[in-house]
This record gives sequence, structure tokens and C-alpha cells, in this order.
Amino acid sequence: MIQVAEALNIIAENISKMPIVKIKVSKSLGYVLAEAVYSPIHMPPFRQSAMDGYAFTHSDLKQFEVVNTSQAGDFLDEKIEKNQAVRIFTGAFVPDDTDTVVMQEHTRRTDHLLQIEKMPVAGANVREKGEQIKKGELVFDAGTVISPAAVGFLACLGITKIKVYDKPKVAILVTGNELVPAGKKLPKGKIYESNSLMIEAALKTVGIKKTSIFKVKDSLKKTILSVESCLANFDVVLISGGISVGDYDYVKEALLKNGVTELFYKINQKPGKPLFFGTKENKIVFALPGNPASSLTCFYVYTLPALKKLMGFDIIYLQEIKRKINTPFKNTSGKTLFLKALYDDDNVTVLESQSSAMLNTFAVANGLIVVPHYVTAIEAQEEVVILPFN
Amino acid sequence: MIQVAEALNIIAENISKMPIVKIKVSKSLGYVLAEAVYSPIHMPPFRQSAMDGYAFTHSDLKQFEVVNTSQAGDFLDEKIEKNQAVRIFTGAFVPDDTDTVVMQEHTRRTDHLLQIEKMPVAGANVREKGEQIKKGELVFDAGTVISPAAVGFLACLGITKIKVYDKPKVAILVTGNELVPAGKKLPKGKIYESNSLMIEAALKTVGIKKTSIFKVKDSLKKTILSVESCLANFDVVLISGGISVGDYDYVKEALLKNGVTELFYKINQKPGKPLFFGTKENKIVFALPGNPASSLTCFYVYTLPALKKLMGFDIIYLQEIKRKINTPFKNTSGKTLFLKALYDDDNVTVLESQSSAMLNTFAVANGLIVVPHYVTAIEAQEEVVILPFN
Repeated sequence: MIQVAEALNIIAENISKMPIVKIKVSKSLGYVLAEAVYSPIHMPPFRQSAMDGYAFTHSDLKQFEVVNTSQAGDFLDEKIEKNQAVRIFTGAFVPDDTDTVVMQEHTRRTDHLLQIEKMPVAGANVREKGEQIKKGELVFDAGTVISPAAVGFLACLGITKIKVYDKPKVAILVTGNELVPAGKKLPKGKIYESNSLMIEAALKTVGIKKTSIFKVKDSLKKTILSVESCLANFDVVLISGGISVGDYDYVKEALLKNGVTELFYKINQKPGKPLFFGTKENKIVFALPGNPASSLTCFYVYTLPALKKLMGFDIIYLQEIKRKINTPFKNTSGKTLFLKALYDDDNVTVLESQSSAMLNTFAVANGLIVVPHYVTAIEAQEEVVILPFN
Repeated sequence: MIQVAEALNIIAENISKMPIVKIKVSKSLGYVLAEAVYSPIHMPPFRQSAMDGYAFTHSDLKQFEVVNTSQAGDFLDEKIEKNQAVRIFTGAFVPDDTDTVVMQEHTRRTDHLLQIEKMPVAGANVREKGEQIKKGELVFDAGTVISPAAVGFLACLGITKIKVYDKPKVAILVTGNELVPAGKKLPKGKIYESNSLMIEAALKTVGIKKTSIFKVKDSLKKTILSVESCLANFDVVLISGGISVGDYDYVKEALLKNGVTELFYKINQKPGKPLFFGTKENKIVFALPGNPASSLTCFYVYTLPALKKLMGFDIIYLQEIKRKINTPFKNTSGKTLFLKALYDDDNVTVLESQSSAMLNTFAVANGLIVVPHYVTAIEAQEEVVILPFN
């Protein structure tokens, strides 16, 4: 049995990034750039008006003849004399012979005659070519997580495809004779299966949608076959249940029979002690405890960082925040505790019903308080570390 | 021209929730419950063992005959005598005649003979029927946002469908003769269109995937027709560009001609002054500025809360956090400023290049500092309000 920190290290050290794939910028939200991107163009690609007004050459003159119009999208190639001006709009091409744009609010116009009433400084209201970025300059470094703004910036440079780390395909394998699908009648002794949908939803929160759910009865032979098929077709296999010490917990044996290397099994924590982590070549396996709350705790603390590492993220762990605990807390277990909790801007409250079978507490919690195994007592108002969901 | 707070109020007051729809629990992540959910069953549905061990009736006896096995999923209906015990596993049915489960680690077994070496208290390791929730009890109140844990909890109660507020279908209408789709050659005077993909990505961050992108040239007639079609087929119409004061900005006229009621136009802020918000019956229209950074600022500050109100969220605004600003800042504009910024646990830095045309700053920022219009100067180390992205 190992400590939490050791388990996290083992995960980080044994996972490599997914293969690099080229995808459309329009589908790239949440992916991580696998190589630096450089600009294929100057942006803006030409001298651009920052205002609706008139373009002219700055001099002592204050009166101009308006000879043409440059609407956004136009390209004016004709000669503009010093005593001439061009009606211009925001984003439009500033003719080469002109150097300044005056806001229309600072002018008076009569037919073709323009009078500038408040003269701007030379060069005013003109966005220089390449002012935002020049051709060949770095757009984003490798490791950048694609945000909506990043999508917009890449698109405005005319970039349609980028190289990113692929997202893993994940198999969710649920074990247990006691499980009945929701919607069916519940025979005595059985319960509704819920971990698969819960884990599938948790995967969606990190943008993983390529998931498949499989179910297997408590039989060693069938479990071996199911694990084999999952390993063959998926990058990550998440198994729910069957990893405890019961006579019918066949998961560990089925994993080892399939050539999965055990990297750890059992962590000195509560809930979620019987967590198994292993790899087979570049395939990753977590066998999560069957109790829903334990399962989800292990998912957030261990599986989610593993998935982020796979997807190329630099920051893989849940962000830690600190809050003052409202009531004192004793830890007589010698284990690291992950306590379902509700925090606000200043304080945090440990929720009732921390049992590993109880999911309702999890559903109202917004984070987990981490009580390290070596801490035996926390005073009221002491600062504690929280792993916030989301 | 109105102030920011007034604009936010107008939005909140003029938007109702979307119609209620019944959807599968498996697809409900991120939706908001439209009505309270009550449990159709007791959970656990029967007395359940919390351990791998032996079930027996607590008495003075310490030796038992093991007469049967209760594996998870089994239902044992036979009589168990006081001197008999049943091998039992975590999650399994505890036979009606027994009341206590002893951990297997606290027993010694020889063939059918069981010796309890460390006697638990009566009732130990048995999860009572309905311990987590009883039939008819409240599962979640209306207004609950469905998290992965909530998906799991609903599923474990056998609930397959829930009533939620629908998500809006959103049309993104992009205007401007200057716009060329990425991937094409860029003629002089033109720029690549990027706002549509950026807004589409921003919509995905709040779980809105039913989006369609339309493009229209700078023509009043064509803009009127495009707006008409969008209003007919979508719940929300987001228009990019064409809302400034330029001669070719036809959007406002096209909206009014289509019977859209103007609720505000122009806000005393920078960037994003020329924002238009209107409604037509239950349809909602935002005409966002064409400059990418202005457009995205308006999206985060105004459109996103509007969408959350539609989707039934109680908390619709970006959460505000406070950090100490690293350098002093002057606001001589008399406008509310939204400054692209990078914050950490303690401090926040205003990024360079705040121009409304510049999206690269937005892509590296993790939030917007809000400087209210009536604040003229901020000292270094003064606390400022930040709207964090995500």
C-alpha cells in the first residue's frame, strides 16, 4: 500500500502523450497544441482604418476633395493627391498615398468638400500592416490549450488545421452480477448500474467523448476476454468494481493475465483504497472501486490527471485552493482522507454522509478536502487544501 | 448610451427560461433540472453488506456453521439459524434472519466451521435499506445543475429520464464584404473571417452545440432576409459586425425591420461599445461588434449570462474574484474598461495590447479586469475585480 503522493508520481511518470494528429481549427477547442504555430500572414494584412472617417495625407491642409470611398473589403489602387481624401470605414484598406484617418465626428462635409475641424496627429487611426503579428512570428507555442480566443486568432490568420495531441478513446468496463440497467425492473438483491454513466459524464467534462461502455458478469473467463477486447481497441480502460479482495473480484487477475503491468494497487486513503493502476505498452488501465463515491473520488484525483497528461496538458492536477474549515475534524485512520465538501469564498464545510456508497453527498459537494494521512486533527478555522470540481 | 450594470439588468429582466424538455439522464450533463426529482426506490433497495465477510445473528455465540454464500446480486430466501452464518461479499443481500456482518479478516474458517476472533457490535457492517435515500424522498430540487455525480445518483435510483430546460439553438450571422473564409487566398483589402468559429467555440464552453453559421454581404436587403431566416429557425441570433455607425452597417436597421425590439444599443464601456440587445417574442438577438476582441468581451460579459438564464441557471454571471493589481492603472475614459489580464493566486497583471482588434492578448489572458466607469485611478497592489474565463 502506497501513499497518495507516491501514487500520483507513479501515474505522472508512466504516462506519455497521445500521438499527434492534425485537426481542423474549428474542432480544436480544448485540445493542446503539439507544435508551435507561426503566422502565415501579416495581421492586419494591410494598413487598416481603425475608425469610420476619412483617409488623407497629413500636412497643413484642412480642406480636401473627397474622391473615392474605401469600404471594408475594398482595395483602392488609384493615386490620391495631397488635397484629396477618401471616405473610409472601420477595417477598410487605407490607400497607399494616405497616412492618417480622421474620425467622421471631427469633420464637416458638403458634397465633395471635406473640412477637418479637429486635426488628428499624423498617422492617427491607422492600424499598421503586421501590427498585431508579422508573417513568420510565433502565434502559439507548443503546449497551448486551445481556447475560444485561440480558435479566433488562428482562424483570423487563415490557419485551418493544427497539430494537437489526440484525445484518448476510453473503454468503461463495468463488472458485477448485482447490476441491472436503469429502466428495468429491480429484482431482489440487485441494484441499478450507475458508474458507467457517471464516468462517461466525468469524461465529457475534460472533452473526451469517444467512450464505449461494456458490462461483464463476475466470471474470470469473461472478464479476461472483456479486458482483452478493451485493451485491443481503446487507449484507456477504466474498470468499475471487482477489484476488492472478495472471492468474486476477478479484475486484477484478468488484467495480469492480459499482460498488464501492475504499477500500484491499493492506496493509503479513504475512500478509494482498492485502486489499481497499470499499463500495457502505451495502454492505460485504472480499476476503480465499485462504490460510486469511491469511484468518482479516484477518477478526480488519479484518472483525470492521467487523462490530462495523455492529452498533452502541462498542468494535469486539479487546482488546489485553501479555505478555513468551519468545524474541527479528527483523522484517526492514518489514511489520507478525501472529504466531500462545500466551500465558498472564505470557508469550507465538511458534508455529512461521507460513506463511500453515498453519491448524493458528492452531487451537492463542490470540492474534496484533502486531509493528509499524517494529520490527526484539524482545528476549526484552520486552513485546509481543497480540490475543487470544475 | 447606458452603463454596464444597467445593460446586465436589462438582459436579466427580458429573458425567460427555455421550454422544458424530457431527456435521458445519460445525456443530461450540464443541463438544469426543471422540476424536483423524487426517489422511485429505497437506496440501497435491501440491507446490504458493507464488507467481505460473514453474516450472522449477533448473540453470545462465537462459532457458526457456514451454510450458504451471498454474492453481490444474489437473493437468499432460506432460513438462517442462530448458530449459522452466511459467507457474504460487499454489496450483497444480507439475509433477513441475520443482523450483523463480520469482516473476513476478523474470522478463522475451517471447512464449514467459522470462528469469530474479533466480535463486531450488533448491526455492524450492514447498510440499512433506504439508508442513502428512501422511496419518495427528494433526490434533487429544481434548479440543480446536473454534474457527473448527479448523473450517477439518478442512474443508481433507476431514473432514466428527467425534465430539464432545453438548450437554445443559436444562429451565428457574420456580416462584412471584407471577410474571406480561412483556407482561401486572401485578396488585397480582405481579411479572414474568424468571429464565427470563435463564437461557436465559446458556445461549446457552456454546452451549446446546436449552432449554425451564416454569412451575409453588406447589403440591407440581404441582411434583412438573413435576419428573418435566423429569427424563424433559432432561439438566439448572434450577429457579428455591421452594428457600428458606418454607412454600410445595416444590422440595426435589418433587426428593426424584422420587428426586433431594441432593448439597448451602445454601452459606456471599452471595448465593445456598439453592442445591441433586442428581443422578438421569445427570440433573443445580440449584435456583437465586429472586432474580435470586442466581440468576445461582449460575449463573456453579456451573451453568456443571457444564455445561462435561458438554460435555467440560477447563477448566470461569471463568478467575480479579487486580486491585487501589479501596476497602477489610470482610467481617463469615463468608461467601464474590461482589461485582458493574467491572474495567479495573489496578483493580476494587465496584459499589453488591449486594442479591440487584437485577439492574441485574449488568447493568453485568463480573465478580464473590470474597471468601473467612475474609477479614474487604481494604485499598485489595490484589489480589483476579475471575471475569470472558465
